[in-house]
Amino acid sequence: MNRPEPSLSLSGERFTAVYRLCGAAAEVEARARAICLEQTVEFPQALIPNEAIRDQIVGQIAAIIPRALDDGSDGFEVAIRYPIESAGRELTQLLNVLFGNVALQPGVRLQRIDLPPSLLQHYPGPRFGIAGLRQRLGVRERPLLCTALKPMGLSPTELAELAYQLALGGIDLIKDDHGLSDQPFCPFDERASRCAEAVARANRETGHASLYLPNVTAPADEVAVRAQRARALGAGGLLVCPGLTGLDAMRALADDEALALPILSHPALLGGLSLGPHQGLAHGLLFGTLARLAGADATIFPSHGGRFAFTATECREIATAACAPLPGLAPIWPVPAGGMHLQQIPELVRFYGRDSMLLIGGDLHAGPDLRARCQAFRSLAAQACEQHTE
Amino acid sequence: MNRPEPSLSLSGERFTAVYRLCGAAAEVEARARAICLEQTVEFPQALIPNEAIRDQIVGQIAAIIPRALDDGSDGFEVAIRYPIESAGRELTQLLNVLFGNVALQPGVRLQRIDLPPSLLQHYPGPRFGIAGLRQRLGVRERPLLCTALKPMGLSPTELAELAYQLALGGIDLIKDDHGLSDQPFCPFDERASRCAEAVARANRETGHASLYLPNVTAPADEVAVRAQRARALGAGGLLVCPGLTGLDAMRALADDEALALPILSHPALLGGLSLGPHQGLAHGLLFGTLARLAGADATIFPSHGGRFAFTATECREIATAACAPLPGLAPIWPVPAGGMHLQQIPELVRFYGRDSMLLIGGDLHAGPDLRARCQAFRSLAAQACEQHTE
Repeated sequence: MNRPEPSLSLSGERFTAVYRLCGAAAEVEARARAICLEQTVEFPQALIPNEAIRDQIVGQIAAIIPRALDDGSDGFEVAIRYPIESAGRELTQLLNVLFGNVALQPGVRLQRIDLPPSLLQHYPGPRFGIAGLRQRLGVRERPLLCTALKPMGLSPTELAELAYQLALGGIDLIKDDHGLSDQPFCPFDERASRCAEAVARANRETGHASLYLPNVTAPADEVAVRAQRARALGAGGLLVCPGLTGLDAMRALADDEALALPILSHPALLGGLSLGPHQGLAHGLLFGTLARLAGADATIFPSHGGRFAFTATECREIATAACAPLPGLAPIWPVPAGGMHLQQIPELVRFYGRDSMLLIGGDLHAGPDLRARCQAFRSLAAQACEQHTE
Repeated sequence: MNRPEPSLSLSGERFTAVYRLCGAAAEVEARARAICLEQTVEFPQALIPNEAIRDQIVGQIAAIIPRALDDGSDGFEVAIRYPIESAGRELTQLLNVLFGNVALQPGVRLQRIDLPPSLLQHYPGPRFGIAGLRQRLGVRERPLLCTALKPMGLSPTELAELAYQLALGGIDLIKDDHGLSDQPFCPFDERASRCAEAVARANRETGHASLYLPNVTAPADEVAVRAQRARALGAGGLLVCPGLTGLDAMRALADDEALALPILSHPALLGGLSLGPHQGLAHGLLFGTLARLAGADATIFPSHGGRFAFTATECREIATAACAPLPGLAPIWPVPAGGMHLQQIPELVRFYGRDSMLLIGGDLHAGPDLRARCQAFRSLAAQACEQHTE
């Protein structure tokens, strides 16, 4: 076949993915080389048609560092550098280069990434982040208080009454349960409208600035429509499950100037990719770095000490990645959740610090007086914050 | 709090999810009950505010069957029935009820689902499927031949020349490599336009009906736009990576009357959720059932005997689910891939049958004469099909 002279001329700039491989030392270099090919040309090295592609497109091994796994078995950290142009300007393609096909291979876990400013510039990231949400809520120092409207099965009127009580009780962010979408027994429009109105009414009475965040997780062609409706109806933010909509659907909401609403990311389905230890995406990367790249202002994850199995170390990794320096991208709120109780608040604030959003769901309802428990939530958080500061 | 009388009045119809739990017998019932709550009300049983919700919304255990795991340890199949209304009419919410939060729990794998017609009616599924694609290609009996335009780094002109040769060689479906998106060195529009033109030119010369399928995996707000462009430029189908776009973005493409193009689903990222054995989504469910619900006409997966680690049993499960009866949904093409070689064709056809799409990438380029190897691909498949029939 007569090919014209290759015209490929890339910048030479690269971004880095650090994988953790488990397995024998004798194989690690070959496996690393295989990843370099798999994630770019997906073609045998020997058949690559020209030197320009071999030099400029194929991933390059930057480091292979022995690092025993938690169970003591052989493990390695392998850093691979990919050309920035391979990822284009698209989050979907960035994810594809980082972990698209390798996600299908056991024994490889993507630990962390390092993106140069030339790539990061395509991702404005969180519109509010920690500082922006503090400003919007007028809350200077303490952790934020969040809860969910539930259970599924209540009518929009019932949920709105609940939202009203929660706002009167001083909860900062009142979100739909992630199981509320657009069911016949609780249509999106009616729910969003009634709940937004209820929270606004409570705010007028209290002088607080509680936000209502409806769940806009929806079919691909309806996410943006629901978000616009939500805004028009008075929502103060949006809840999204990027595992269900695709991570980039959240990015599109965050980048939408006409919306400009805080975004709370929920881990449904997506979080399955974090279950390791020998595969998938590291907790900090998935719930921290990638959530930020995709524009979340706050990232919900199941905290240790609740119904789920994340460890303290994994939770620490998420909290760290949510706030680690990332040029141009605001730090965001870690939202430890998944069966948290009021009595855990001191420990949660000790662990996550004051720049955390505490999400308490069911436990707010575990007493006869919802509003009193909300107020307890608030004072416990304030108290814990003071002790944390001392 | 004064709640109005609960007005909940659901149909009583339910759909079923079968989970595999690993762990001790003493705990299995409590864990099953926890899933019933987790996936619906996400609320402690004791706090559910009324009987209507307890009876009509919460999942119900239909069966708990001891089933030892492959490694001989304790395991159970737990069938849970959820109200059809909990899933609304939305694939995103159906996935959420099936596996949203449980995806975050190790030791629980979603094995299969059973949806009644009242729920299936919301999912038209594959527009072409096996019969429709045979008709469009004019291929009555033999397996279909598929390959990818690669490697990344070639220009649109080079890829178009490659597409031309592949179409002359008699390949039925010529798809973009899933790593080609809209990079500066290979912009989507130019690539799709040149490759579609090249395949059309070859078709005029050969009288065949080869299809070109550009990769429309793209940012959330561009998937539909690229698909429309692809169609306008003469594409004969679309390649989508639903793990990158979200599964429902593929569903939206499939349902789009104005597109009406065959859809090939690629497992990038999504497939990570199938890595088990004690978590995630079963292979057949993910690559078979869910791909069909989401409108794929053909589902690519890494076959045993290639670069990836899927077992023969897992591949069998996918091929079975791709074709199993599912009211109203056409059977679709299993596309075994991931480093397949020409010499494996007889075995592939023996294993997957004639209603399979054989995807050979790199190996077509492993000789001096690409067109000759395409023809060999074609005659090997025809031969294997005859032997399979005898």
